[in-house]
Amino acid sequence: MLLGTIVELFGVGDPGVTFSQVVLEVMRHLEGAYALIFKSRHYPNELIACKRGSPLLLGVKELAEEASIGASFNDTKFLSSNGQPKELFLSSDANALVEHTKKVLVIEDGEVVHLKDGGVSILKFDQAKGNRGRTLSRPASVERALSILEMEVEQINKGKYEHYMQKEIHEQPESLTTTMRGRLIRGGSCKAKTVLLGGLKDHLKTIRRSRRIVFIGCGTSYNAALASRPILEELSGIPVTMEIASDLLDRQGPIYREDTAVFVSQSGETADTLNALEYALENGALCVGITNTVGSAIARNTHCGVHINAGAEIGVASTKAYTSQIVVMAMLALAIGGDLISSQERREAVIDGLFDLPSKVKEVLKLDQEMKYLAKLLMAEQSLLVFGRGYNYATALEGALKVKEVALMHSEGILAGEMKHGPLALVDESLPIFVIATRDACFSKQQSVIQQLHARKGRLIVMCTKGDAASVCVGGSCRVIEVPQAVDCLQTVINTVPLQLLAYHLTVLRGHNVDQPRNLAKSVTTQ
Amino acid sequence: MLLGTIVELFGVGDPGVTFSQVVLEVMRHLEGAYALIFKSRHYPNELIACKRGSPLLLGVKELAEEASIGASFNDTKFLSSNGQPKELFLSSDANALVEHTKKVLVIEDGEVVHLKDGGVSILKFDQAKGNRGRTLSRPASVERALSILEMEVEQINKGKYEHYMQKEIHEQPESLTTTMRGRLIRGGSCKAKTVLLGGLKDHLKTIRRSRRIVFIGCGTSYNAALASRPILEELSGIPVTMEIASDLLDRQGPIYREDTAVFVSQSGETADTLNALEYALENGALCVGITNTVGSAIARNTHCGVHINAGAEIGVASTKAYTSQIVVMAMLALAIGGDLISSQERREAVIDGLFDLPSKVKEVLKLDQEMKYLAKLLMAEQSLLVFGRGYNYATALEGALKVKEVALMHSEGILAGEMKHGPLALVDESLPIFVIATRDACFSKQQSVIQQLHARKGRLIVMCTKGDAASVCVGGSCRVIEVPQAVDCLQTVINTVPLQLLAYHLTVLRGHNVDQPRNLAKSVTTQ
Repeated sequence: MLLGTIVELFGVGDPGVTFSQVVLEVMRHLEGAYALIFKSRHYPNELIACKRGSPLLLGVKELAEEASIGASFNDTKFLSSNGQPKELFLSSDANALVEHTKKVLVIEDGEVVHLKDGGVSILKFDQAKGNRGRTLSRPASVERALSILEMEVEQINKGKYEHYMQKEIHEQPESLTTTMRGRLIRGGSCKAKTVLLGGLKDHLKTIRRSRRIVFIGCGTSYNAALASRPILEELSGIPVTMEIASDLLDRQGPIYREDTAVFVSQSGETADTLNALEYALENGALCVGITNTVGSAIARNTHCGVHINAGAEIGVASTKAYTSQIVVMAMLALAIGGDLISSQERREAVIDGLFDLPSKVKEVLKLDQEMKYLAKLLMAEQSLLVFGRGYNYATALEGALKVKEVALMHSEGILAGEMKHGPLALVDESLPIFVIATRDACFSKQQSVIQQLHARKGRLIVMCTKGDAASVCVGGSCRVIEVPQAVDCLQTVINTVPLQLLAYHLTVLRGHNVDQPRNLAKSVTTQ
Repeated sequence: MLLGTIVELFGVGDPGVTFSQVVLEVMRHLEGAYALIFKSRHYPNELIACKRGSPLLLGVKELAEEASIGASFNDTKFLSSNGQPKELFLSSDANALVEHTKKVLVIEDGEVVHLKDGGVSILKFDQAKGNRGRTLSRPASVERALSILEMEVEQINKGKYEHYMQKEIHEQPESLTTTMRGRLIRGGSCKAKTVLLGGLKDHLKTIRRSRRIVFIGCGTSYNAALASRPILEELSGIPVTMEIASDLLDRQGPIYREDTAVFVSQSGETADTLNALEYALENGALCVGITNTVGSAIARNTHCGVHINAGAEIGVASTKAYTSQIVVMAMLALAIGGDLISSQERREAVIDGLFDLPSKVKEVLKLDQEMKYLAKLLMAEQSLLVFGRGYNYATALEGALKVKEVALMHSEGILAGEMKHGPLALVDESLPIFVIATRDACFSKQQSVIQQLHARKGRLIVMCTKGDAASVCVGGSCRVIEVPQAVDCLQTVINTVPLQLLAYHLTVLRGHNVDQPRNLAKSVTTQ
């Protein structure tokens, strides 16, 4: 409708008005974030793509595959410059391009890609100009170099698995290893074990002097930050504040120059997180990015950061990125706390725990069939509660989120300490309740929670440390899932895996689409 | 069992061992918080009461009702001192006593009340002694003065209402007026409107210099703090951190001398909040209490504080205390921000909003029948989602909590900004969704949320500002609840009331106990 109005306004067909001028005028009227492709019957054989906020990539495949890397992409002369026939692809996500080509051009805000008669030009929309009415000046054309995607087609194949989510759950021992590669130093006979995060080392001093560390994220990334909060607080001694990106923006909450703001996003393109980053930059905070996507908007616009190197994640429900995010943030905690002798023993225990993690994840993945059986028991349920506390509060939230988003079951993560302030009223013989009660400082409190749920005849499924079945479940009255023990702050990584498997099997059994859950997108690039 | 063991250990019947010695030995072995009453066939006509952590009151009613206020309560001579026959009551809550007597004695930790042959003595258990084995020394008896409850029996009558919860919802215009009485200064011709909180005025300077303000609470009290957070951040410019009391304790999160910790609890006896207070005191923070109970543990042990003066709340689900807590915390924000000229206009607008609040609550209560009708439509549902954001994120959490705890329906409060990160997957034609979309800075974002839920055929009930029905619900396709408009930061008080009414009517229609929901207690005095 808007395009119609503007086309009418300019009198299309008037040879003085080009398609790109029309689109530029449309862009001036659009609000919010978008990535759009325009076609018009008034301009046959032309196509225009543009974006603001949302990501947009142009993939270029030379059919004769002559090497032209580094060749610049200059106006319409590009195609004629070597005369090779080309295929062009437009996508918001590199994963969709990689099976066709690895040569891409990252389109920036305000740029317009114009395809006409087999030629490509990129025009820059000068926002400062803002000339309204009929006096449209021709925008400047820009020159950009192609970049090469560092990604293999195998990464986006399902291999022996039926679904991406399943594959990504099962490849976590490998993805976690990749995340840690080159970053953990084992130490020698008299040298301490330590952590090296290259992207952060020049900023650690500043971070250690912060008034607060503020974790900012959405959905699963927020949960990963929450899971890492206790160890960061413990090792740094700095108060860690949790912010859901959209809530920080809604409240316009205080962020100051003395704050370190850590932005967590798998795609690095999450709209709210990106807007929160802009807000934090305006307020002078030191901004740290934690993403899985090299060259993403958050990676580009933060002062420093860490890539989680988990490999491409295709399933909409995040699994391996979640566990890698936690591991990166545990390493962040070690790096920030790296100054203090008093906590050296604790730090070394956590580093040992990191080394052991992939093999323990491999072990916990053996619960696959057990979780499938549990999913069969639960598949007809309407509701599920997941109770956790301490290090495993985040595990409860994340487990419930997985079940909610792919299995489409109303599941809710509940802080066990809040049980008596409301949730206990829901407990009866029919509602299934998953309780996380692995060994850590909160174990005896969780035992008491289990006793109280049991006294109300709750239908319990308890996750506990191997060998603890009898301590959590007196008289064998509830179903028990036993998991291997890790160092307390990393136990959440182990504990999340059975919940991922449960969500996966529930989804398959309930007949829903695993990799593209109803109504959801992989990267939430709009508000 | 434990008592049995100890009784056996000491050889009861041995005239050298008294009942109080046995109980003192039992107390040495108990862990956690408790208030207990002991009877034994070995000691007929004796009764012993003791407590740790949990509250315990001894009510004294003189049957001849002679004034003996101020008379000291000294060992067994008390009853014989004036020879009047007396009735004695033991309770954890003053509300249970007030219909019998207003004369009470607050029992303290480590004290033992011993009733024997019509006489009363109070013994002090010296924790430092810790003598084990059979060498029991007789504990010292203590002298204590009676205090008088400031509470009227009418406060705990239901009057014309069927349930306490119903009465307490409908008396909110009065309870809010009482909360503000004497605390808002209207200002003169050239004097600014202002707020006076007597209990805080000596500490405001210190609070304004805090590194952080940390809100600590559980359940509904936490939600009230969350509702007040944005205005406190705005007026004070100080970062406000939210902590669920049990989570802070589980994590042993950082609290420092530069922090101001605000403890919110209706009863003033909530176990986790009380433990968090102890933790914050150890760490040197300035501690502020916000309670509804004069003389409660939190009121006694904080450095300063504000009473919400909402009157006795009997219904287990908190309603009028919630709205009064928000009003007190809005006044707290005004008092802390009282320094800045730049925000004077805003502060005066909020003060005007406070003056107008009771009449607007009266107006919104007229929705009673409409909410009853809505409850009829929803009574057979399994699940309910409540969406809010900004000032109304807390409204969504609190509305969902009310439905959960009394109507026993699985309802969940959802931050609207997180919709695309999971909850949207649940949306279909059958799941009822309550969306709060009254006018404030987030209104256009909420309109967009409604459009997206609508596009997924969500079954929407939208709460909007009077006259906005057409703007929130294009084509009349969803049910609309219109509420009067208040100043943005107080709108949450108005918006909570219809949700309280909905929870109430749902509970009655579903046939559950309104005032004593399944499994829950009014004051959670144990972990």
